[in-house]
Amino acid sequence: MSLQRQLVLAAVQFAVKPHDPEANVAKACALVRSLPRGSATLILLPELFAAQYFPQDGGEPAHFRLAVPSPHTEPQHPFWQQMLQLADEVSAALAVSFFERAGLAHFNSLALIDPHAPPGQSPFLAPVYRKLHIPHSPGYHEKFYFSPGDTPPTVYTLAAHRVRVGVGICWDQWFPELARCLALQGAEVLLYPTAIGSEPQDPQLDSCGHWRRTQQGHAAANMVPLVAANRVGVECASDGSSKIRFYGSSFITDNTGAIVAEAGRDEPDKVIVGPVMELEQYREARLAWGIFRDRRPDMYGAIRTLDGSTTTR
Amino acid sequence: MSLQRQLVLAAVQFAVKPHDPEANVAKACALVRSLPRGSATLILLPELFAAQYFPQDGGEPAHFRLAVPSPHTEPQHPFWQQMLQLADEVSAALAVSFFERAGLAHFNSLALIDPHAPPGQSPFLAPVYRKLHIPHSPGYHEKFYFSPGDTPPTVYTLAAHRVRVGVGICWDQWFPELARCLALQGAEVLLYPTAIGSEPQDPQLDSCGHWRRTQQGHAAANMVPLVAANRVGVECASDGSSKIRFYGSSFITDNTGAIVAEAGRDEPDKVIVGPVMELEQYREARLAWGIFRDRRPDMYGAIRTLDGSTTTR
Repeated sequence: MSLQRQLVLAAVQFAVKPHDPEANVAKACALVRSLPRGSATLILLPELFAAQYFPQDGGEPAHFRLAVPSPHTEPQHPFWQQMLQLADEVSAALAVSFFERAGLAHFNSLALIDPHAPPGQSPFLAPVYRKLHIPHSPGYHEKFYFSPGDTPPTVYTLAAHRVRVGVGICWDQWFPELARCLALQGAEVLLYPTAIGSEPQDPQLDSCGHWRRTQQGHAAANMVPLVAANRVGVECASDGSSKIRFYGSSFITDNTGAIVAEAGRDEPDKVIVGPVMELEQYREARLAWGIFRDRRPDMYGAIRTLDGSTTTR
Repeated sequence: MSLQRQLVLAAVQFAVKPHDPEANVAKACALVRSLPRGSATLILLPELFAAQYFPQDGGEPAHFRLAVPSPHTEPQHPFWQQMLQLADEVSAALAVSFFERAGLAHFNSLALIDPHAPPGQSPFLAPVYRKLHIPHSPGYHEKFYFSPGDTPPTVYTLAAHRVRVGVGICWDQWFPELARCLALQGAEVLLYPTAIGSEPQDPQLDSCGHWRRTQQGHAAANMVPLVAANRVGVECASDGSSKIRFYGSSFITDNTGAIVAEAGRDEPDKVIVGPVMELEQYREARLAWGIFRDRRPDMYGAIRTLDGSTTTR
């Protein structure tokens, strides 16, 4: 008789109100609270949901004021107390994407809050994960605001059923290396909070299918479920020089990359919930399939370099 | 004005006749010849198409007699002369999966034949690629027949338009590491000759969607087109103890992983041909998207080990 270890994933999608963090946090809370208490194991909020997608502005130092310290540095910060109370209310782990101020550095970070952490352990699971891959293109000027993360691929363990959670943040979702590292280190589910939409420089470019297939591939190749939460709606640069239509389409996959729950492209105020996933069945499927037996690390030297070379220059 | 470098991919799908290599090679030739001369750049045949899928037999030494030397060892072998003539006739590069005898070792190998190789260069591009990842499960007992390949990820360059071709063989298609290594080393298209179908031990297990999504993910994450050619039809083990229904479903994707040509699950004698692909546009799309700028090899240490550890034991 195998141990029952169940996982129910949920993701929140909504349109962010510019310059009104309080309203955005209130909206996120209301959507999370719409879930019956105890109905989900793990709830994912979109990337940087507290603010408009400020990296649309090419280089605006005032936006650094939006950053907050990590919950490990300042657990009493009102934002963290609000998020902790929320996780507690719905009795679910909550993945919170936030703009992190850390000394003189700033990161695009994620804190995983586990309201079931045993007494004596912080419900803010350590460490905060800092986005490893930072994009930079018209409308998505993240390299101005965030240092590339200094936290290696990070797998968290929830108290409930000892679920092991691997996290990435938005642009990270384009890198199969990160998904693989997380799976190799025991991740049983992958989370990707996201802010993606149209490309200001090319109105014809719609990356939604490409975006989904890339992540479905991570789920399929690593045989773990995956959840992506995106924002929705149109946001404009502060100077009006560009706009992005965020395309929603948040989704949850099973352990073969098939989509099992999804939100629409323009659907605001939406919470999606996946089916009950049996993690021991998924684990046995991974072992039976054999992919983690037959890897050839001796042949993957090119992955260790940026230019694909396998010899020292 | 950017250079025009065009690629048209084709894949062949058919049902193999047990114990009749001559008939199978003749069938492959007939299907390839059904393509108008010069209409495709590169044609992919299914994995080990010359024979029944003999690894369904758990350990039959007589099957080693099916192996042939590589075209670099014995270019005058009738099989290689036949394949070379075929490539020449259709004026296309031909990817030929074969059971390789090499001294006392045996490999599951692929030879890429380029009929446009310049004078003085062999049309058999060197080296032969030897399948890196060897599966082993009920009905797919490959570890009895094949040593794991000793050739690192290999990218070939065709004379026509200098197209750079990355190859994997069947089970290789489940490993994002190989696809990534090939892309990093300049592959502009990924090929996967395949023999996959039902699982004798579990009639409920249908991996077709999983199989496709994993490879669509490789195409999407690396932003290169991909072609997979599978066999079709039912084959039985020699002793009648098991059978496999190969599920066809050969397909070609574009550089976002979207399927642009496909064959049915039970469709025999089928050649699929993709649209004209503009390789310089694809290259520019890869650069504009930025994924090969933002990788973090310093953080991918887990990929270097089988157990995901990042420290020396």
